[in-house]
Amino acid sequence: MKKIAVFTSGGDAPGMNACIRSVVRSALYHELEIYGIKYGYNGMIEGDIYKMKSYSVSNIVQRGGTILKSARSKDFMTKEGRKKAYEQLSSRGIEGLIAIGGDGTFTGANIFFEEYGIPVVGAPGTIDNDLFGSDYTIGFDTAVNTALEAIDKIRDTAMSHDRVFFIEVMGRHSGYIAIQSGIGGGAELVMVPETSTTINEVINALQKGKDAQKTSSIVVVAEGGEEGNAHEIAAKVAPHLPKADIRVSTLGHIQRGGNPTAFDRILASRLGLAAVEGLLNGEKNVMVGIIDKEVVYTNLKIAISKSKPLDQDLIRLVEILSI
Amino acid sequence: MKKIAVFTSGGDAPGMNACIRSVVRSALYHELEIYGIKYGYNGMIEGDIYKMKSYSVSNIVQRGGTILKSARSKDFMTKEGRKKAYEQLSSRGIEGLIAIGGDGTFTGANIFFEEYGIPVVGAPGTIDNDLFGSDYTIGFDTAVNTALEAIDKIRDTAMSHDRVFFIEVMGRHSGYIAIQSGIGGGAELVMVPETSTTINEVINALQKGKDAQKTSSIVVVAEGGEEGNAHEIAAKVAPHLPKADIRVSTLGHIQRGGNPTAFDRILASRLGLAAVEGLLNGEKNVMVGIIDKEVVYTNLKIAISKSKPLDQDLIRLVEILSI
Amino acid sequence: MKKIAVFTSGGDAPGMNACIRSVVRSALYHELEIYGIKYGYNGMIEGDIYKMKSYSVSNIVQRGGTILKSARSKDFMTKEGRKKAYEQLSSRGIEGLIAIGGDGTFTGANIFFEEYGIPVVGAPGTIDNDLFGSDYTIGFDTAVNTALEAIDKIRDTAMSHDRVFFIEVMGRHSGYIAIQSGIGGGAELVMVPETSTTINEVINALQKGKDAQKTSSIVVVAEGGEEGNAHEIAAKVAPHLPKADIRVSTLGHIQRGGNPTAFDRILASRLGLAAVEGLLNGEKNVMVGIIDKEVVYTNLKIAISKSKPLDQDLIRLVEILSI
Amino acid sequence: MKKIAVFTSGGDAPGMNACIRSVVRSALYHELEIYGIKYGYNGMIEGDIYKMKSYSVSNIVQRGGTILKSARSKDFMTKEGRKKAYEQLSSRGIEGLIAIGGDGTFTGANIFFEEYGIPVVGAPGTIDNDLFGSDYTIGFDTAVNTALEAIDKIRDTAMSHDRVFFIEVMGRHSGYIAIQSGIGGGAELVMVPETSTTINEVINALQKGKDAQKTSSIVVVAEGGEEGNAHEIAAKVAPHLPKADIRVSTLGHIQRGGNPTAFDRILASRLGLAAVEGLLNGEKNVMVGIIDKEVVYTNLKIAISKSKPLDQDLIRLVEILSI
Repeated sequence: MKKIAVFTSGGDAPGMNACIRSVVRSALYHELEIYGIKYGYNGMIEGDIYKMKSYSVSNIVQRGGTILKSARSKDFMTKEGRKKAYEQLSSRGIEGLIAIGGDGTFTGANIFFEEYGIPVVGAPGTIDNDLFGSDYTIGFDTAVNTALEAIDKIRDTAMSHDRVFFIEVMGRHSGYIAIQSGIGGGAELVMVPETSTTINEVINALQKGKDAQKTSSIVVVAEGGEEGNAHEIAAKVAPHLPKADIRVSTLGHIQRGGNPTAFDRILASRLGLAAVEGLLNGEKNVMVGIIDKEVVYTNLKIAISKSKPLDQDLIRLVEILSI
Repeated sequence: MKKIAVFTSGGDAPGMNACIRSVVRSALYHELEIYGIKYGYNGMIEGDIYKMKSYSVSNIVQRGGTILKSARSKDFMTKEGRKKAYEQLSSRGIEGLIAIGGDGTFTGANIFFEEYGIPVVGAPGTIDNDLFGSDYTIGFDTAVNTALEAIDKIRDTAMSHDRVFFIEVMGRHSGYIAIQSGIGGGAELVMVPETSTTINEVINALQKGKDAQKTSSIVVVAEGGEEGNAHEIAAKVAPHLPKADIRVSTLGHIQRGGNPTAFDRILASRLGLAAVEGLLNGEKNVMVGIIDKEVVYTNLKIAISKSKPLDQDLIRLVEILSI
Repeated sequence: MKKIAVFTSGGDAPGMNACIRSVVRSALYHELEIYGIKYGYNGMIEGDIYKMKSYSVSNIVQRGGTILKSARSKDFMTKEGRKKAYEQLSSRGIEGLIAIGGDGTFTGANIFFEEYGIPVVGAPGTIDNDLFGSDYTIGFDTAVNTALEAIDKIRDTAMSHDRVFFIEVMGRHSGYIAIQSGIGGGAELVMVPETSTTINEVINALQKGKDAQKTSSIVVVAEGGEEGNAHEIAAKVAPHLPKADIRVSTLGHIQRGGNPTAFDRILASRLGLAAVEGLLNGEKNVMVGIIDKEVVYTNLKIAISKSKPLDQDLIRLVEILSI
Repeated sequence: MKKIAVFTSGGDAPGMNACIRSVVRSALYHELEIYGIKYGYNGMIEGDIYKMKSYSVSNIVQRGGTILKSARSKDFMTKEGRKKAYEQLSSRGIEGLIAIGGDGTFTGANIFFEEYGIPVVGAPGTIDNDLFGSDYTIGFDTAVNTALEAIDKIRDTAMSHDRVFFIEVMGRHSGYIAIQSGIGGGAELVMVPETSTTINEVINALQKGKDAQKTSSIVVVAEGGEEGNAHEIAAKVAPHLPKADIRVSTLGHIQRGGNPTAFDRILASRLGLAAVEGLLNGEKNVMVGIIDKEVVYTNLKIAISKSKPLDQDLIRLVEILSI
């Protein structure tokens, strides 16, 4: 293998740049030519591909976003699109791919591999931490810390006014951000999609806090719950707690940006190197992850079909700590 | 004058604690007894009043929120409520008041002074910076920096995906936070309540950016504009820019909390001292402010009736810098 | 077991408060009485012990430092001191201890257990991450992020002036902070006490960077290396690189403070609960840790005698990424 | 005037990039050609000059450092050097200069103007805030906030261990950073070069704190004081307070980097525009500043010869607030 390419795809996550940097420098260290593909699969189809050098990734380890840009590609879902992509790669002699992204990215990569046989290693980059095959995904730790800093700020105003706050964090199918920012933020309750929490349970938790002389409360809500978004939940709860001064805050897109934390930069750096060395060692259709401190390669089919359960200990922890 | 009291009222703002600390220590320095009233006018009515010492305000200069808590009081709007408040104060021999808050707080303070003659000095504490009589209000600089850090994060993701973002910041009747965070955040356009911006102007600004090869754009929207909130504006703009990938983020209550900036801590400290010394020098019904580096006392009636215009230079600056 | 006590000892670390909170609430959840001992072993000897309630630990999850204060105790190193400490505990009916700290703390706890048999569970709290028996210690992640943010700032000025910076971070016997902040900060070289790095190797690394057209470089130095501190190393290197504009920055005590990161708050919360439940389950002379996501109890004698090696992969990673 | 150039020189300061951006876009707005000179006067001499476009300054408003790099130039202190610089400019038809920097930068600019008559407007960029002719300089607010965040962190550990900390901040001839970070950080004492503070006064201040039951204390020291640096002062104080646990922290170069605050970005943006418009309006040998909200042009000779006194009110404020 002499030429490989790297791209980012799907929702961006802090640390993607640190991963790109690691891929580029690891490739050069192993005397490979390394290409960057811009705008994910769209750029692959359109040939938006350029050769990268060591200095191409100078001074990006600390930056949010992705210098290769990201996109969701409809064209790549078609046979025709993938054929064009293959031609772009083969005309340049690119023999291996490193795809940084999440579920959707890897689904595309898997189909592409099955059709054209170009080896691909995926590196898990998504703030949601919802990928089987790695304890953590790139961007998750940063997103949790961003959510937590926001919760810290909101607690200041909640306490000043004796208010109840419903704070909505990201994670459509995954409660990871919610549970971690909820524990870290000292929330009275955390609502995650993995467990159903009824409105009655919310009311009881808030009532219990009130009975324990708490003057303010925080409920962290993952965006994808059964009872609706934070505004809807608050509206259902309000009539039952007429004395409570209830407010809602949706943290939104700030969770996707910002300088990555140390944890994310190191994870991204390790995964970038392991992705390159995976390709060199003959890995073909896998996602690279770190489980219990060890680098692990998981077949892409398995990575996208299995789900990673939320740690039940953490759910119990919220309950105990909100006493 | 031997005994005075301090309270916070209305929406909380970062730096209120630094101001309370300064009031307490300045009072003790001048050998006054100093009382804290909790929950604003409500606590005044209910006698939630306690004597403060130097150590009562240890280690709070850096904390958001207010240790005296804040509230909006309906009872104080009644003659009866104010009578009770007066009795609570006079039974304790409290001869002067320092009120930290905004417009509503000072309206109440003014009426109370006119009815009962207890001297009061107001210190401007509101993130909106909309008070006549001071260049800056306590909490504004922190709120702007919080908004700006959020915009910086959102820019990361906007650039990665070539998106247009409408970001809504606080300021119902005032564009101060919007204009400053917009300039600092490199926004293409800022919409403030002081100036009407039509949907057509928004479309043109975004189109101009597109023509200049900008791949992503940020529009900062103050919450109280004529064209509605950020979601409504985005919905009106979207049909005219069918190729744009438009997103909305409402920053919300994070702008009210957080550790105050250096600027706010120093402003709050200066105003706290000046409020105490104002009372000692015979000021009676005034707001203390800083204008062009000098301490200024403005009659409360004037402070609440006049408005502070937005600096037109800043509006021009946005336009020039977004070239 | 009905009454237990908690204390912090040795150098403070961000997240100790989150751990205290978790211990207190977990104890109450399990219907134990919980006491706080102030100033570590000194407070134990002098009886500076008070009963804690749920609200005693309100609003501290996010605060650096330790509300129980910490100290190093000479008296506890004497038989007499420990006898007094035992009497203070037994007179109050305290049947179990939770000690939050590092090596020195656990050495004392181990002797005390052997002499008096009061069960003790240690929770690893030190920014150095140098304890056997846990992948991570409370405070380490925060310290790394603090160091990293400092490195990010210094890189701004290093790049503006084409300078070489030697940045000294904490870790007298342990290179954990150095290696992680070095990788995260994109350092050209990291010097850790676990591996000896000669001055020649430093010169070569900087020369290699120069040859690769790098205009600025960062060397991260752990404080306890053979070649001396950062100032001494810089002085040895300077004569060999006469054209280089070399500067030194010692980050110092900022690394011990600050709001804990999400990672540290969650780790501290988990360890606090596991410490309480360890005592209840009959653990007697152990440190609680988390290894590969699982709670593990390690005999204190082993925890203090064995050392945790630095991950060699990370050392290799620095070399590859600085290409 | 059709072609102008901008450069940064001397010590870098956060916000210089925001100022460069504003200069470039303001020039383009006024239909000028705008050139960037790299490495200050060195680049001017060597012809390291390039034409800038609007996109040259995209996405830099939030970055520390300076994309134009900075340097101190010995060659420019010679007649020969300045002659070469003039030839480089005139051969490109550059008719006006904007110099972002401090004292040394403006001294050079003034000589150059006197010799060659090329109009120059200086924009004050230095963290020290020690320039006559502007209330604030670009970078000062950011440096103060960086120092303050460090002090906040150190206070956490000071309080946990009941320690006295001497914290050294930047400002060789100017106590601005010290006084503002000291007030904001709740310091017991601030030592600034403008006022002499004896070791006895330091001892008394710390003793007074001790008598008032303060368990920890912070003394902020500006680097250039008569009694030496923070280590030296601590060594002089220690023998007189044998029970105090004294530590020293020198904040160092972190104060020069980091993302600029809102205040600095807006100040830099305003000054950039005013510098360009100053040139267009015929200003010739001036520094642009903002005094009491108004743009002011001060002759460079005056700007570099007069000094801006430290606000005595702030020194009094420290004393009152540390009661």
